[in-house]
Amino acid sequence: MPNILVAYYSRGGNTKKMAEEIKEGIEQENVSCVIKPIAEVKIEKLLSYDGIVIGSPTYYGDMAAEVKKLLDESVKLHGQLESKVGAAFTSSKNIGGGNETTILAILKAMLVHGMIIQGNSSGDHYGPVSIGSPDERAQKQSFQLGKRVAQLVKRLS
Amino acid sequence: MPNILVAYYSRGGNTKKMAEEIKEGIEQENVSCVIKPIAEVKIEKLLSYDGIVIGSPTYYGDMAAEVKKLLDESVKLHGQLESKVGAAFTSSKNIGGGNETTILAILKAMLVHGMIIQGNSSGDHYGPVSIGSPDERAQKQSFQLGKRVAQLVKRLS
Amino acid sequence: MPNILVAYYSRGGNTKKMAEEIKEGIEQENVSCVIKPIAEVKIEKLLSYDGIVIGSPTYYGDMAAEVKKLLDESVKLHGQLESKVGAAFTSSKNIGGGNETTILAILKAMLVHGMIIQGNSSGDHYGPVSIGSPDERAQKQSFQLGKRVAQLVKRLS
Amino acid sequence: MPNILVAYYSRGGNTKKMAEEIKEGIEQENVSCVIKPIAEVKIEKLLSYDGIVIGSPTYYGDMAAEVKKLLDESVKLHGQLESKVGAAFTSSKNIGGGNETTILAILKAMLVHGMIIQGNSSGDHYGPVSIGSPDERAQKQSFQLGKRVAQLVKRLS
Repeated sequence: MPNILVAYYSRGGNTKKMAEEIKEGIEQENVSCVIKPIAEVKIEKLLSYDGIVIGSPTYYGDMAAEVKKLLDESVKLHGQLESKVGAAFTSSKNIGGGNETTILAILKAMLVHGMIIQGNSSGDHYGPVSIGSPDERAQKQSFQLGKRVAQLVKRLS
Repeated sequence: MPNILVAYYSRGGNTKKMAEEIKEGIEQENVSCVIKPIAEVKIEKLLSYDGIVIGSPTYYGDMAAEVKKLLDESVKLHGQLESKVGAAFTSSKNIGGGNETTILAILKAMLVHGMIIQGNSSGDHYGPVSIGSPDERAQKQSFQLGKRVAQLVKRLS
Repeated sequence: MPNILVAYYSRGGNTKKMAEEIKEGIEQENVSCVIKPIAEVKIEKLLSYDGIVIGSPTYYGDMAAEVKKLLDESVKLHGQLESKVGAAFTSSKNIGGGNETTILAILKAMLVHGMIIQGNSSGDHYGPVSIGSPDERAQKQSFQLGKRVAQLVKRLS
Repeated sequence: MPNILVAYYSRGGNTKKMAEEIKEGIEQENVSCVIKPIAEVKIEKLLSYDGIVIGSPTYYGDMAAEVKKLLDESVKLHGQLESKVGAAFTSSKNIGGGNETTILAILKAMLVHGMIIQGNSSGDHYGPVSIGSPDERAQKQSFQLGKRVAQLVKRLS
């Protein structure tokens, strides 16, 4: 059975709520999901997942330093995450507040790892964005991302 | 008296409405403003403006081809737009729909021209975004951009 | 047998040479490849490919307007390119001259279409970059991209 | 007399060497320059500079976590860095290795602070890139950036 990690950094709880929605979407596809705050992720354990989904609040148009720290440390595994599925999500204060660029920063790091990502032709194209606390729209986008990542993992395994 | 061009591409009228708000912001700062659909902009005339503001709808996370065409043709003036002030705005269908990346695509082209750009520490940080028809929020962001660009042009001249 | 399109826009011939290397990489994987200048690509035909690879020279840190035009017109098929494999490449005048942002602009458009893309943990991470005429390094990167895209298409089909 | 900070993070010394070239360019314009490793920068002191130049190695297509940490902490000053001049530079292992996206990540954070940035119509458009140890090309680009930032600071003060 494939296994997906949803790792998030959250101070106020908004990014965490999105992570929980994503987990539900993944599990609805009968794929196993581990959800963890980023500080509890062990680098070596990344090897054991088929998919890795990372969420961060938007700080200065980019992921939080705490999230970047994990990615920087993942250099130990460089080359070994090739062909795993990746995805990203963010919560932000404003529309136009740097949310898309935060998601893309995470996705670009995943590309540097040789990972596989997929966009979405409807809704939030690069990954789910919540403006403040996740409203119904953002919850739906998050749930849908979980389903899509799980489907892609199944297709590739 | 300094002079700013606001050039836009608009099919449905949303980007055009934002352009008009920006023009009002510019004129409130006692700076002259010419507003034009992108198809009517003459490349050589770009030299006569102190600031250039470009707006595009968000098509596939990037400016419309019609806008890119103008930028590609501006290579004739390459090096001559150095130190002019630039800014960008967009209208988009969705939050998370590629609006920030569209603005940044225009700003990056301006950086390649050696132009000067400024962000905004409140509101839409890279430039104003309208989700669909400009609501009060998007109108205010657009007006404020006009004021800020005019202020920067005055400070530099 | 899976089938991949390599579409390019090239004035001086550098981007075309990269396209030809990519084609060789694809065919070495026993995957069929059609190579075409972007102006000869029929929108409706995009549906018939399992993978779409697009190359553009770097103009103002972004794809050429001629390439963006095709992407804008592809809105007719919006939603129908979901889950196809995408990739991008560019030739540029300078290191630091906007080449990565050009590749990412094409990849972002592919994400908006819901397509699947993969990075590379060695070499040019987002896609092959040639500085001027493709040297041995750029040729190798291009060939390798062809192989990787073909492998991913086979894995997904 | 205007005053510019050049802050860098460097493990192997490449980014540091670029910082030193930038300092020389700044001083040739008769502008004062303070050069510091990022860990020694005091957030509150950022207020005292007219320009802030930040350099980072390219780690996963983005600035190092140590650099992002400083930017995240700068939220204490949010709104107070408005209209200061900003610039960025990076050293990277490969052409196409995420160097432009690293520079743009820093520049985007500066835009979120409402800072003013300028591109360059010749050479490295967004900011200087060194592939490995700074060669003559990268040194020249760095020196030139120093001069340009100093010139802009003088023009604005």
